[in-house]
Amino acid sequence: MKSDLLQLMIERRLDAIVVYGDTSTSSDLAYLVGGAQVSGGFFLQTLSGAQVLLASVLERENAETSGYPVRLWHDFPLSRYLEAAAGDVLAARVAQWRAIFAEYHVTGRVAFYGMHDIGFGWRFLSALDVASPEIEVVGESGETLFAQARQTKDAREIELLRATARATTAVIANVFDFLSHHHARAGLLRKKDGEPLTIGDVKAFIRLELVKRNLEEPHENIFSQGRDAGIPHNAGRYDMPLRLGETIIFDIFPRDRASGYFHDITRTFFLGYAPDALARRWQDVKSVFDDVMAAIRLGELGGTYQTLTCDLFAAKGYPTLCQNPQITSGYIHSLGHGVGLDIHEQPRFSTVGPQIPLQPGHVVTVEPGLYFPQEGWGVRIEDTITLDETGQIINLSDFPYDMVLPVR
Amino acid sequence: MKSDLLQLMIERRLDAIVVYGDTSTSSDLAYLVGGAQVSGGFFLQTLSGAQVLLASVLERENAETSGYPVRLWHDFPLSRYLEAAAGDVLAARVAQWRAIFAEYHVTGRVAFYGMHDIGFGWRFLSALDVASPEIEVVGESGETLFAQARQTKDAREIELLRATARATTAVIANVFDFLSHHHARAGLLRKKDGEPLTIGDVKAFIRLELVKRNLEEPHENIFSQGRDAGIPHNAGRYDMPLRLGETIIFDIFPRDRASGYFHDITRTFFLGYAPDALARRWQDVKSVFDDVMAAIRLGELGGTYQTLTCDLFAAKGYPTLCQNPQITSGYIHSLGHGVGLDIHEQPRFSTVGPQIPLQPGHVVTVEPGLYFPQEGWGVRIEDTITLDETGQIINLSDFPYDMVLPVR
Repeated sequence: MKSDLLQLMIERRLDAIVVYGDTSTSSDLAYLVGGAQVSGGFFLQTLSGAQVLLASVLERENAETSGYPVRLWHDFPLSRYLEAAAGDVLAARVAQWRAIFAEYHVTGRVAFYGMHDIGFGWRFLSALDVASPEIEVVGESGETLFAQARQTKDAREIELLRATARATTAVIANVFDFLSHHHARAGLLRKKDGEPLTIGDVKAFIRLELVKRNLEEPHENIFSQGRDAGIPHNAGRYDMPLRLGETIIFDIFPRDRASGYFHDITRTFFLGYAPDALARRWQDVKSVFDDVMAAIRLGELGGTYQTLTCDLFAAKGYPTLCQNPQITSGYIHSLGHGVGLDIHEQPRFSTVGPQIPLQPGHVVTVEPGLYFPQEGWGVRIEDTITLDETGQIINLSDFPYDMVLPVR
Repeated sequence: MKSDLLQLMIERRLDAIVVYGDTSTSSDLAYLVGGAQVSGGFFLQTLSGAQVLLASVLERENAETSGYPVRLWHDFPLSRYLEAAAGDVLAARVAQWRAIFAEYHVTGRVAFYGMHDIGFGWRFLSALDVASPEIEVVGESGETLFAQARQTKDAREIELLRATARATTAVIANVFDFLSHHHARAGLLRKKDGEPLTIGDVKAFIRLELVKRNLEEPHENIFSQGRDAGIPHNAGRYDMPLRLGETIIFDIFPRDRASGYFHDITRTFFLGYAPDALARRWQDVKSVFDDVMAAIRLGELGGTYQTLTCDLFAAKGYPTLCQNPQITSGYIHSLGHGVGLDIHEQPRFSTVGPQIPLQPGHVVTVEPGLYFPQEGWGVRIEDTITLDETGQIINLSDFPYDMVLPVR
């Protein structure tokens, strides 16, 4: 949690942290400033308690809403450092940052966070490291300070996540209502004029529903049908008519524009009817989903549930990536991921990467799925859950799991 | 242009380039793959002609739409390298990337691009550099290969930029129409029920207009009034009623969701009437705008026009950042910036940073402005322009500059 930042710095023997970037892409900076829009921001926190947010004069009021002491970049004007460095941008930036560090008495181990061009970032921090005997540049691999802080949500964050969840499920309800108000004929869902309703029509409806609730989609939702549902991140083909009796994966993961928090939920359903063979596939995924949900406990490692999911699918005769990481059909992804200011964050229900024991305040998706594009189907069922202090699961995705959406 | 990539590699003595990241945040990757949505993508190009786009199995079809040869990450499974590295993520990633480099015979100077956590990126590339005697890690400062390629748009890109421009100006036209269909009473614009129309109401209308045209706003538009218009990046206060006779800055810079290209345009206007003193301010900005537009020529450096703008404002008695970079009132920002797959890119009309001679295919904003929050006003007028082979300005922002929007 945010209140743990100093403790997390101590555990990492850090004397200062710097978070650089734009709140719309650097979620660590967004986490700190809590809703303020800042581009080219620079947050500095020292172990001795100094805090400052540097911002452009154009955004000084945005920056002030963060509650941190604000300084303006033009107090350290790049033009002056460029002049002193005869136009060398790298040297000028290094001199500028060193001036900031000097003013805030930054020495020792300084860790850097925030999104930046990887090549420039590498060159810049290398140059800063060499030019600054008083500091040691630290870059974290593995679980960073912010990944650790952010994976446990505090009560305020849980409320914001709930709000995004409520808005998202309201969108889904309206989409299902929209679909069920169309008529079926000759195996296709049709508009009033008899023309087939397409995935593009549904997407246009979804966009309006999202915007009415101040939700945005950095990545477009998935509304994919039949063989396309068998490719997990196939967003759906706009010109494709909606057909009865096929698997439709509807995976929607929008962000609230004001709070920045995401929600993530998937339903797989059939329009009109489910052919027996596909209904069994759906039931297989639902049964794995239920079994995994029932097994989730505080203190267990994320990989445990990925292994469990693989075992459950394997027992039903499906290939899984636990047996062979190179398969392209079957159960081919990990069980879930943390959700917060990023759509994918820690902790992860995966056997690959850091193994984090489940804690109260973790917010994660549970999303088993099966994919067989060559057989023309895919099924995924996903909710986003959190755990309370007693280990009770609180399901943020409050929406039914109907297999069939009746049509007229 | 994209067709210059190999030539730009040769000029930089690069044997290979790697672009890493997510197309929704790494615009260099988006530039290469041209509209495909890829997260955790890895593009490799060698001087000897090898090209490959690595993608997740979940996104293999998205990746294939790029036209590049696609390989899947699971051909180089991280789990295997993690096992070999006893769980050390950094070492595993280094081994994984080295295996890719070996397969594609990558040696020599390799430059890295794309957005990544700056601290991890620094640590990772440092480790890769040390572990890989066969390659030299290169990070570009100043004008990168992609900044240079992307600053000159080809004919296809100009058409995409035009399309975003047309959709954006259609939104503005509808917003002005929406405003002018409200009635004024007691100095405020009012809804049918007599309640004041607020900036929040206008923003809600703008959001719907944008989504209908498949436009999105990574950064929210600016619709700011009176003293708020005096703070350049103040987005506007939602609860504020629209008042007659005040400066309203409407700056909108959306992105087309399909193509990824931005447009950027600002109008400053008054509802009902412009008080004489403020009308003079508006005319001063418009006159500077017109003079700068008339002066723009192929071959001139960006800083030239920033200096010209400062001189023009100074001649009218306004303070400018050319005289003092630390001012907070007057002309306090640079004249303009490139627009493409990023809202701010090269070339820039600024005296700070790389000085690039204007070329055909450059797409830049021209946006002089004056800001006096303590006097309760701000004015900015902005168009996005390009230059053709003859040096003729083609104004992509085809929209009138009316100072006053009449109300009933």
